[in-house]
Amino acid sequence: MPEFFNVRSPSQAFDDLRPHISAITERETIPATSALGRVIADEIHSPEDLPTFPKSTMDGFSVRARDTFGASETLPAMLEVVADIPTGTGPDAALNVGEAAVAYTGGALAHNADAVVMIERTQPADESSIEVLRPVAPGENVIQVGEDVHTGDALFSPGHTIRPQDIGGLLALGITDVPVLRKPRVAIVSTGDELVAPDTSPPPGKIRDINTYTIAARVVQCGAEPVIIGLAPDEYEPQLQAARDGIRTADALIFS
Amino acid sequence: MPEFFNVRSPSQAFDDLRPHISAITERETIPATSALGRVIADEIHSPEDLPTFPKSTMDGFSVRARDTFGASETLPAMLEVVADIPTGTGPDAALNVGEAAVAYTGGALAHNADAVVMIERTQPADESSIEVLRPVAPGENVIQVGEDVHTGDALFSPGHTIRPQDIGGLLALGITDVPVLRKPRVAIVSTGDELVAPDTSPPPGKIRDINTYTIAARVVQCGAEPVIIGLAPDEYEPQLQAARDGIRTADALIFS
Repeated sequence: MPEFFNVRSPSQAFDDLRPHISAITERETIPATSALGRVIADEIHSPEDLPTFPKSTMDGFSVRARDTFGASETLPAMLEVVADIPTGTGPDAALNVGEAAVAYTGGALAHNADAVVMIERTQPADESSIEVLRPVAPGENVIQVGEDVHTGDALFSPGHTIRPQDIGGLLALGITDVPVLRKPRVAIVSTGDELVAPDTSPPPGKIRDINTYTIAARVVQCGAEPVIIGLAPDEYEPQLQAARDGIRTADALIFS
Repeated sequence: MPEFFNVRSPSQAFDDLRPHISAITERETIPATSALGRVIADEIHSPEDLPTFPKSTMDGFSVRARDTFGASETLPAMLEVVADIPTGTGPDAALNVGEAAVAYTGGALAHNADAVVMIERTQPADESSIEVLRPVAPGENVIQVGEDVHTGDALFSPGHTIRPQDIGGLLALGITDVPVLRKPRVAIVSTGDELVAPDTSPPPGKIRDINTYTIAARVVQCGAEPVIIGLAPDEYEPQLQAARDGIRTADALIFS
């Protein structure tokens, strides 16, 4: 009796294949907004600090922290509100001793301010003054320049697959174009004398080719591009030709 | 102190939204080969049996099972091989008493055959005959007509999201076009006086809009189509206008 099969386990087969696999190195630069699912080609470093300005994490008042030291409910610190710095505007005021500026979540602090007092920790004193009921430490309720990301920080390594949040992270730093690897092209050949195209009615003994399209959809899911070579009969020469066609036009070949 | 927030939990918010949500009913018919990730619109029934012919699950010989009854290693059943029915061809022979036909995995049986004997359970007797060393029961090693799918079987229900293997299943039955629901369109508005487009350099106090594109990528991942409406400042009228633009052109609106 001849041996019918010479079966190898998937891991054995992969060990055999591995030495013949070379990584794709061709790259292209594409808009970050179109990069979902693509694979980063080069290490990406931050071109700037984030945030670019000291930013309040609370609604309240930017202050010189030392002006609040010792403040309490019974002995509040009285500060004069000299400016209002809406979110989206730059700090157009500078604080002197005993002064504060209205601050918003995500907004800038006044010049000379080094902390933010939550509005809940203040009460109005008169039309232009507030009482601060608790002290704040320098830096409190403030995201410092570069606290999220520093200029030059490594953001992504080669081989990273881009997720939605990565697109946001890139754009936050003004990185609107990203170097990505070319998508792998995967050629697909289905073999078998019994196969006919799915849009035909199989004569007796034949069946429709479904592997081609099932595999193609999986290839798409994996982030690669299917290249459909077509059907090959159960003969050596046509199968060899189909395999050659596949390898010539693609990075990988799936033969089923 | 005024209330700053009137916070609702996601489930509360969804309960509020639910009565206003109507399912998409517009449908389109698209090629099954392009339907990955799309949502089936109508119940799909099988137009035919699968397989369409009795099919061998083994390499061996199709036989009349009764001709093998009582066969054993010491007293084999002798059968004359009267045909060879390669995979992909129809059964062009009919068996009489004491006859067999070469059968292949996935191939057809001879007419009158009702079982397949594995080649391992046979040995050659002479050039045109075999000895069967063990009996087979009727139906053994055979997939009957319609055993995988019967004509009229429900294959998919409305709302099913098409996976690669579903594409294969549809094509196996000759279903090359599928009715799917239109993709939901999701309008996206980012609000905030502090926002500038990601391809600009933010002046002091401003930041780049990243929510629009992060959300758009998530919308794509969910199988829907993002419709980017743009930025709206922190004012009621422009935000209302942006929301109206979004709702007019899309099925849902994400306001961030």
